Parts: sequence; C-alpha cells; structure tokens
Amino acid sequence: MKQRAGSRTVSKETELVVAVDIGGTNLRLALADLQGNVLGRWNASTNATFSPNHVVRQIEQGIASMLRQCNSSRRSISSLAAGVPGVTNPRSGVVLATSYLRGWKNVPFQHLLESALGVPAALENDVRMAAIGEHWKGEARGVQDFIFLAIGTGIAAGIFANGKLVHGVNFAAGEVGYMYVPGGTEEPASPGEPGSLEGAIGGDGVRQQWAKVCPADALPENLPATEIFARATAGDPPAKNVLDRSAQLLAYAVYNISLVLNSSLFVLGGGIGVSEPLRAATERILTRYSEPSAPRLVISSLGTDAQIMGAIRLAITTANAHRKRSV
Amino acid sequence: MKQRAGSRTVSKETELVVAVDIGGTNLRLALADLQGNVLGRWNASTNATFSPNHVVRQIEQGIASMLRQCNSSRRSISSLAAGVPGVTNPRSGVVLATSYLRGWKNVPFQHLLESALGVPAALENDVRMAAIGEHWKGEARGVQDFIFLAIGTGIAAGIFANGKLVHGVNFAAGEVGYMYVPGGTEEPASPGEPGSLEGAIGGDGVRQQWAKVCPADALPENLPATEIFARATAGDPPAKNVLDRSAQLLAYAVYNISLVLNSSLFVLGGGIGVSEPLRAATERILTRYSEPSAPRLVISSLGTDAQIMGAIRLAITTANAHRKRSV
Repeated sequence: MKQRAGSRTVSKETELVVAVDIGGTNLRLALADLQGNVLGRWNASTNATFSPNHVVRQIEQGIASMLRQCNSSRRSISSLAAGVPGVTNPRSGVVLATSYLRGWKNVPFQHLLESALGVPAALENDVRMAAIGEHWKGEARGVQDFIFLAIGTGIAAGIFANGKLVHGVNFAAGEVGYMYVPGGTEEPASPGEPGSLEGAIGGDGVRQQWAKVCPADALPENLPATEIFARATAGDPPAKNVLDRSAQLLAYAVYNISLVLNSSLFVLGGGIGVSEPLRAATERILTRYSEPSAPRLVISSLGTDAQIMGAIRLAITTANAHRKRSV
Repeated sequence: MKQRAGSRTVSKETELVVAVDIGGTNLRLALADLQGNVLGRWNASTNATFSPNHVVRQIEQGIASMLRQCNSSRRSISSLAAGVPGVTNPRSGVVLATSYLRGWKNVPFQHLLESALGVPAALENDVRMAAIGEHWKGEARGVQDFIFLAIGTGIAAGIFANGKLVHGVNFAAGEVGYMYVPGGTEEPASPGEPGSLEGAIGGDGVRQQWAKVCPADALPENLPATEIFARATAGDPPAKNVLDRSAQLLAYAVYNISLVLNSSLFVLGGGIGVSEPLRAATERILTRYSEPSAPRLVISSLGTDAQIMGAIRLAITTANAHRKRSV
C-alpha cells in the first residue's frame, strides 16, 4: 500500500469524485475534481482480497488516505465509480460474474459501496471503463464509433457505436477473445478456458508460440510477449515468426470487428496491446484487407490510466444525474 | 409491371406514405396509412433501369397507379422512404456507391425524389431498411439488440444496438460478407469481388461447392442453394456435405458477430438465409460454441416484405419529424 506523489490541498468547497479500478492484482483509486483533475491517488494489492466487503473496506481506507493528502473532508465527495474485471450490469449495479477476485457471482457491489460511503456509486466493466476514458480524455476524443481493444492475459473490446457504449443483451458485448479466425484453434472453448483468439495471442498464447520456436538453451522460454515482439524488430528470426503469426491473427480479428461496426479507429491497450511492433505489423497486414475500409490502429496514450479516467468520467456523470434527480 | 391485389379505396382525408424497395432486379412500391396498413402495391423491373432520374419517373408512375387504385389524390401523401441496394448516407440522402443500378456514385437521390414529388423523403441501405422492418413488425419486435442477416448473392447485416441502427463511420457497418473465418479463403478480396464469407456461402459460393461434389450426369449442376439444402435433409450425401460446410462457416460468422455485440437474436433473410435446413444446421453447431452465449436464429417472418415494412416505418418517422419541424 503506498501513497503516490501529486497530491495537493484543495479548497474546502471543491466537490470531489472517487475513481476506482479493481484489477486482478491491484486496487487503484484516484480522487478528482469535477473537471477531471486528479488530486490524489492510492493503491493496494488485491492478492489477499476476496470478499466484496473486504474490497469496500479497502476503498474506504484509500479514500480516507487521499482525503488526508488533500486536506479535504468526506463531505466533499459527491460520487464514486468503479471498474470491475468481469461481467457487470451497470443498470442494477451488480457484478454478475468474474474469473478474478475468487469468482464473485451476483454481487450487488454498487449497493455495498453506497451503503458504506453514503454517496451515489456506479459500476462498469473494466474494459468498457477504459473505453469511456479513451472517449473522454484519450485517443478517441470526439470519435462516435470506435473500439478500445485490450490485449493482455485475455482479450476484450469496449465498443462505442453512435456515441454510446454497447453492452449487449447479457452485458457481454466485446468478448472477442473467443473469436474464430483462420489459423486459430477451431475447438469450442470449455467454460472458464480461454477462447480461440486469446488462446493464440493473449499472454499465455504468445508464450506458448515462443516456447515452440525459441532455440533451446539460447533464450529464456518465459520471455514476456512485448520483449518477444521487440526482439522481432531487432531481427531475431524465431521472434519474428511469433510476431508475424500474432499480427496476422490480430489483423483478422480487427478486420472482422470493423466489418461489423465500420469503426475507423481501434485504440489498443493492455500489457500486449501497447506493443508498437505488434501494432505496426498488424496495421501493415490490414492495408491488404482494404475492402470496404481499413481501420486505423493507435496505442492508448492513457495507458494503465484509461480505466481511472473512465471512472472519473462516470463518477462525474453519476453525480450530475443524482443532482438532477434531487432537484 | 403489374398491379397487386389488396388495394382499396380510402377516405379522402387519410394521410398516406409511400414505401419504395429498389432492388437489383425489381422496383417495388407500397402505399400505406400511418398505422402501417398496406393499401396498395406496385412493382416493376429495374433491368432496363439505370439513371436515377429514370427510377424517379418509375416511382412517380407507380405512385399514380396506386393512388388510382385507392381513389386517393397525391395531396394525401405525407412522405416517402426508399431502400437502396448500396452504401447510403441517410443523413445527407446521398447514395454513395452501389454495384447495382449500373453503379450509381454520389447520387443525391433524396433531393431528386423530394423535388419530383414535393414531399419529404428518406433513404436507407436496403439491409438496414429490412432490419427496421423486422424491429417494427417482424421477429425482432421490441428487441433492442439484434442482427438482421441477409444471405443471398451477397451477405450483409443490419444491426440494432441500444435500440438504434448502427451505420458506422462510412455507412458501411454490417459488411460481414468480407469476414474471415476458419475454412474460408484467406486471400484479400479485390475491389468489387465477393468477400471471403460470401465467396463461400453466398449464392455463387454454394453453387461452386455443389459443382465440386455433385455426381457427374446425375443432378443438375446449377441447383439453387435452397434446393441443395433441402436435398441434404432428404439424405443426399453430396448435398449434406455442402450444407454441413455452409452451416459451419455461417455458425462461425454468427458467433463472431454475437461476440462483438452480444445480440441474442439473429433474424435470417435473403434467398439463402430463409432456408430452414441451413438455419437448423447452423443453430445445432452454435450450441457447441456456448461460451459466452449462444444466439438464437430465426427466419424472417416478413420475408421479402421486410424492406417494404421498414420503408413504411421510416416514411412515417420522416413525416412526423417534418410535421414537428413545420410547427
């Protein structure tokens, strides 16, 4: 648990919001004003975390710490929004299912937060939260139709169409890690197992590709994907093999998604998605598939802050909606 | 050119709208009241048609004929909407491009219609128009997130997300005939050529599959796709081969689209899409890909009337919007 730099004292009257990013391994909080200026940060590990009430207590602890940093009181907080790594119903505020946090199921987390903190709260799936962040302050500012594509251990998309987030009928829109493209496995995924696309180019998939081609006793078998891709651009043939195959599968997936939505912009995030060699190789392949249109790929400029920025935005929207209802 | 049955005399005061379905070979018109009751129909061939002005004149002729059938005057017409087989900008009312009608490019067809007829007009791509029809009066009534999937010579989707049509940045959303799935060709499509998916399971694709497997001098080589699929259910092994492969490719495409949008419902239309053996075989395969969710496939109940019903709906919306603006 550590306190970040950048905290400052704010005027007693300043209205504040709390942004929460619940990850598989980290819990990150930010305190911001209604213009989106980050005034304080706090983070903790979620490794020992499992019960929803424990996470709520961690959040309370983080808020208290950030308020002390800013010399503000709890009364100045108008609302909170939290990004959750799982299937989340933002209307009811329930976490339906997640493979992290030891598998929460149907947790009324919004209600737990509101009861504990006494302010309106809102939830959103973490990838969609990052898309909100990119739409507000990142690479997709002012773009009505775009995709935030997170490529890490898993692969998922946060989708804006007609200027609005797409959730789908079971709040599972964007689960493109299961997509079938030429060159991936054609076997149906078992429940809880990675889908075809993420099995090939998610974190484990890239490591498995590498283990197959890397020269025995020459290089570490467990090289991270981004390092493999960096080696490829340095001319290493087995690494180039892995990059080429990964970029080809990613190009098929991006192209297929762009056919459905005709989005001109894909913002890439996640531990693997931010690899420039992967982005460049994928975009090069996409120029071959130019009919009916080739989308543009950019790496997220917000990086790991995309979720936090999205949560600030959603918290501000939530505070405003609550204010309107109260009038 | 023929007049259909079902026309009736309407009261002189009844407000009417005109629905137009411009196809590659047929021009179909309907006259309806504001409740969507069809009061008259008219159709003609578009084989000899090419210039936009010629089509406008045909539409005028059709309207005059339908009005005579109903004993109504042109003054009773409030608006018109037309479905167009190509890339269409419904906001500017311009047909951007089409491979039918001898290749219209940037035709301000809405303006031509409004000038000729003196009433507000609206355009929409024909597959999206069918989706509007299905949403209003067909299988997707009340469904906020669904796909109308047209499978004929080509393959395209009309997409509703959050209760609204998705157009995309270049009005090319839903061009899923270009999708890459396992088992299809991996070659990039040349401009004007069919995409990977439609090359395999569009009309020509199915015929080519059939030509490869059908026993020489036993069966006609140019059997329509729906007859091939019907033979498959009757136990014919080469036909079953074609059905199985077509259903597998279609299942991949439906599954991939449903991953992006999490739509629970696909309404199938078009000459091949309405084949029940194809629907049943595809749905059977989809149950194997149940993670994260298996979409339901239904055959359009409106059939070839989906576009006309969509055009009636859009014409009514257009009349109402114009009335509001005039107040």
